[in-house]
Amino acid sequence: MNATVADRRRIDELVAACLPGHALPGDFYGDPAVHRLDVEVFWRRGWVFAAHACELARPGDYVTLTIESDPIVVLRDDAGGLRGFHNVCTHRGTVLCREEAGHVGRIVCPYHQWTFDRSGALASCRGMPDDLDRSRLGLAPVHVRELAGLVYVCLADETPDFERARALLEPLARPQGMERARVAAVRDYAIPANWKLVWDNNRECYHCNVNHPEYIRANFDHFNDDDASPRIRAALAEATARSEAKWTAQGLAATHRVTGMACFPDPDHDLWFSANRTVLVDGWVTESLDGRQVAPLMGDYPDPDVGTLRLRTLPNFWCHASCDHAVTTRLLPDGPLATRARVVWLVAADAVAGRDYDLDRLLPFWQCTSEQDWDLCAAAQRGVRSSGYRPGPLSPQKEYNVEAFRRWYVERLASS
Amino acid sequence: MNATVADRRRIDELVAACLPGHALPGDFYGDPAVHRLDVEVFWRRGWVFAAHACELARPGDYVTLTIESDPIVVLRDDAGGLRGFHNVCTHRGTVLCREEAGHVGRIVCPYHQWTFDRSGALASCRGMPDDLDRSRLGLAPVHVRELAGLVYVCLADETPDFERARALLEPLARPQGMERARVAAVRDYAIPANWKLVWDNNRECYHCNVNHPEYIRANFDHFNDDDASPRIRAALAEATARSEAKWTAQGLAATHRVTGMACFPDPDHDLWFSANRTVLVDGWVTESLDGRQVAPLMGDYPDPDVGTLRLRTLPNFWCHASCDHAVTTRLLPDGPLATRARVVWLVAADAVAGRDYDLDRLLPFWQCTSEQDWDLCAAAQRGVRSSGYRPGPLSPQKEYNVEAFRRWYVERLASS
Amino acid sequence: MNATVADRRRIDELVAACLPGHALPGDFYGDPAVHRLDVEVFWRRGWVFAAHACELARPGDYVTLTIESDPIVVLRDDAGGLRGFHNVCTHRGTVLCREEAGHVGRIVCPYHQWTFDRSGALASCRGMPDDLDRSRLGLAPVHVRELAGLVYVCLADETPDFERARALLEPLARPQGMERARVAAVRDYAIPANWKLVWDNNRECYHCNVNHPEYIRANFDHFNDDDASPRIRAALAEATARSEAKWTAQGLAATHRVTGMACFPDPDHDLWFSANRTVLVDGWVTESLDGRQVAPLMGDYPDPDVGTLRLRTLPNFWCHASCDHAVTTRLLPDGPLATRARVVWLVAADAVAGRDYDLDRLLPFWQCTSEQDWDLCAAAQRGVRSSGYRPGPLSPQKEYNVEAFRRWYVERLASS
Repeated sequence: MNATVADRRRIDELVAACLPGHALPGDFYGDPAVHRLDVEVFWRRGWVFAAHACELARPGDYVTLTIESDPIVVLRDDAGGLRGFHNVCTHRGTVLCREEAGHVGRIVCPYHQWTFDRSGALASCRGMPDDLDRSRLGLAPVHVRELAGLVYVCLADETPDFERARALLEPLARPQGMERARVAAVRDYAIPANWKLVWDNNRECYHCNVNHPEYIRANFDHFNDDDASPRIRAALAEATARSEAKWTAQGLAATHRVTGMACFPDPDHDLWFSANRTVLVDGWVTESLDGRQVAPLMGDYPDPDVGTLRLRTLPNFWCHASCDHAVTTRLLPDGPLATRARVVWLVAADAVAGRDYDLDRLLPFWQCTSEQDWDLCAAAQRGVRSSGYRPGPLSPQKEYNVEAFRRWYVERLASS
Repeated sequence: MNATVADRRRIDELVAACLPGHALPGDFYGDPAVHRLDVEVFWRRGWVFAAHACELARPGDYVTLTIESDPIVVLRDDAGGLRGFHNVCTHRGTVLCREEAGHVGRIVCPYHQWTFDRSGALASCRGMPDDLDRSRLGLAPVHVRELAGLVYVCLADETPDFERARALLEPLARPQGMERARVAAVRDYAIPANWKLVWDNNRECYHCNVNHPEYIRANFDHFNDDDASPRIRAALAEATARSEAKWTAQGLAATHRVTGMACFPDPDHDLWFSANRTVLVDGWVTESLDGRQVAPLMGDYPDPDVGTLRLRTLPNFWCHASCDHAVTTRLLPDGPLATRARVVWLVAADAVAGRDYDLDRLLPFWQCTSEQDWDLCAAAQRGVRSSGYRPGPLSPQKEYNVEAFRRWYVERLASS
Repeated sequence: MNATVADRRRIDELVAACLPGHALPGDFYGDPAVHRLDVEVFWRRGWVFAAHACELARPGDYVTLTIESDPIVVLRDDAGGLRGFHNVCTHRGTVLCREEAGHVGRIVCPYHQWTFDRSGALASCRGMPDDLDRSRLGLAPVHVRELAGLVYVCLADETPDFERARALLEPLARPQGMERARVAAVRDYAIPANWKLVWDNNRECYHCNVNHPEYIRANFDHFNDDDASPRIRAALAEATARSEAKWTAQGLAATHRVTGMACFPDPDHDLWFSANRTVLVDGWVTESLDGRQVAPLMGDYPDPDVGTLRLRTLPNFWCHASCDHAVTTRLLPDGPLATRARVVWLVAADAVAGRDYDLDRLLPFWQCTSEQDWDLCAAAQRGVRSSGYRPGPLSPQKEYNVEAFRRWYVERLASS
């Protein structure tokens, strides 16, 4: 569905109405024409986080997801590689794999049993003429990449460069061992808010003090240049210095050592990915309610003192990982007014529920924090479409990343 | 959201298709372009009944309402006056007051705690630059007026004249004492019908005989010129004459003394408001199931014999009041195919539930009558969008007010 | 609602994108502009199956149905004929008959009691002027035809020729005696799929082998030219030959004696109707789970050995009938993404539930088969709107009727 001329004109008007340093005009958060273009530009051209490689352990394991109205299946092929396809039959368009996750020898369409092998090739189609060119009727592929256990898909013919992202993210992410983790829990949410409001929320910790009591006990990044007291700065510097020598030796050097959130995204260099490791508050070795370890160590970590690892990729992924577990969030759009979010908790592959970890202790920190955020996003959505809403100024101290996201978004939209 | 050129052309075609003395064409009751213009012309420019002043007794008391997609808050300020605002933060548009009613010292945005005093001024915004011009970041005001305890808002920059309405309504409404009443009960309804179908229903009692058995036992106004028997006319004249001397002395003179409903609206003089007092059937001192008093006397009434007071203002309010209670109905649009209605029962401020009144006796008369009407509105909505519907003739004897409403509506729409 | 110029242009583009011998492009199954035109061309101009005559036994019996947004009522008039009307009052458009089926002396509008006699004439309208021309205010008629107990309506002013359909269908359908049957059971379904996906499904048995285990035990028509083994062909030929002499004598000659489904529709001759009688598998005298009779013989059938009678008319009806019961399916559109289906089981009029038949034995065959189909339609709908869907090739051996339906549909749409 390409943007029509009328859509394009509408977008241009809206883009022209954007003010630097201010929130987006309300029509960006609900206008159907904007959303059609959002889907085309960001969701069909970008690298979309799909799943964890550990969910696709054996050849034939698959996961499905729906990107707006596009059903996608990702599966592990016979050679052990990952492949992605439009999850629709090349005959009459029926959705093929109907479960969220499963295992297949071959993909068999439930309608007429057209059968595709794990490389997507049409292996059989009983009832079709012998002279049919089956080679042209394989499943429509989508690009797939794996990065430290994270599986991405891209629906576009020409993809954005993934190797730049890999070069940056992989060294940081590798020690976490997410590729050899297991899924301990999944929580799915339907957030009644446009996907960009979820990012606006994610890109600042200005809202943390009051809304995230659990989060701020463990972290430093809600302290900004304007409100980090000398005591806080000293504590941060001390913790960072202490970790410096030790972590560097272990290849776990903190890459974010200052107050405030790491800068992301970077519209000037079109960076849609970033990662950093930073310290937790003294006494917290993990993001749990009391800061105490809630699962066995993950990956290559030699001991619990590894701070926290954060990853994020636009348009739909972020991760907060500690020594003992990692929590990922995947967003998917569902029309202009709603976003589906899946939060996944990963632990070491050999950790056993009940013995090595307990969901009652593993989940609350990020379950609370996530749900607090979804609630704020919903409250924002209720207001931004008001005829009385005028985009207000963003705080240079606290919302620099909201501004960066706004610029990244608008510039890509305008030039699409 | 201004009507586009295409919308305007569509409206002009529809307006041209209207026949005097006939019901409106079906597209007026569901076409999205019509509804967009309805919202702009009637709901964003008119005086919209919001709440009762008695719900906002103390400084800091607030009520919220949503006019189509516009969240509004009305609150009592420190000086005891009423103020209304778009209920969205001037920062990033978040809805501020999230309850239907409550009390605030200051209005604090749940997102980043921007704080507004009761005059709407931005009192604090931790984290913003010192040189930010806070004076321009107060809440966006909406106009508020109070009239005999009824609170209205208007979202337009330039409001229709309210003082004309006050001059007419206040003398009639004042003795009811609604400003010193209390809310005894609230019933909220989602009517699956366009807001204009609710008014079409409200503006005639042609449907009363069969549909409103409770209402017609107490009232005279379903008798029209064509069907008021000599006996009925005599009863009405007698009751009116009897009340005349007494009520005049009390300042409660009946202003409607004839058969049929009072004429309203008046498109020729753009009267969107009206009120009248009229007699009840002998034996009924109030609109209750048996006509007997169901609560203590309200306001300035010296005894129960005060007939019934009726108020109505377009686009969204009417009231039926008796000696002992008043029942108000507030409409709010919810898209082209639905209307939210709130029915409120008021009694004297010092009346005590269980002792002075009993909801089982207070509510049924208007709860039944209201629900009977919503059911008819829903049945009308199901039919008016049929391809087989052709607007039929209105009865000059019984639907003169439906025709007046049609003219008032169409003429304002056409000239907008 | 006429197709606008923009709609028309969109349709033309989509029609131009259709490939002969291939499935329809996805926008045919969800685009609002396509659906508006579908409603106009197929649902408002075609003959739509409405009900069974046996549901309308006595004068005053009525049934209602809603064709997209058009409420329709069909009733038996005083002379015993059938009449159809837009089920909306000629006054202010209110829906008149609100039950699915019922009995009326006269049709009385619930709103203002305008009253219409069983011929649709306005019989009374209390409160309207004496000089009102009541003759112009009768109910808006729709065309009605009855064919062997099947009742059709057409909303257009000029109807497609019905007599051609009658000439073909009536001789075949008459022995079934549906006009003197009774409704044993009704099942209503909301299928989340465009109505054309339901026909695509109905027009081939390519999907039967795996999806319809009950159906394929009883029938031959899922065997096509390419996969009917010599044994199957022999069994079909033998059963057909055996029935030939006997049935011909009884006027029940099999009209479909070969493998595969009967060809339908026929776009070249604009045939939107067809019927045929064919044999069941040896041992099956009816479409029940075990092939044994589940109700008394219907109609004129002298013994159970009558094979199976199949009828279908576009856009919304098919029937599978056996010696002892008939099962009809009526489709009605409900927006571009949903179809309401009603499946009705008919038995002989004098059959008594519990004594002569048992729903537990009567229903499962077609209840299972229907629900299996709806599930496939829903899976197709989920996929066809994917950006990755490309219409695939249809099997000439197995999907010739899907291709015929596609051509019939597209050609009528394009020339509308």
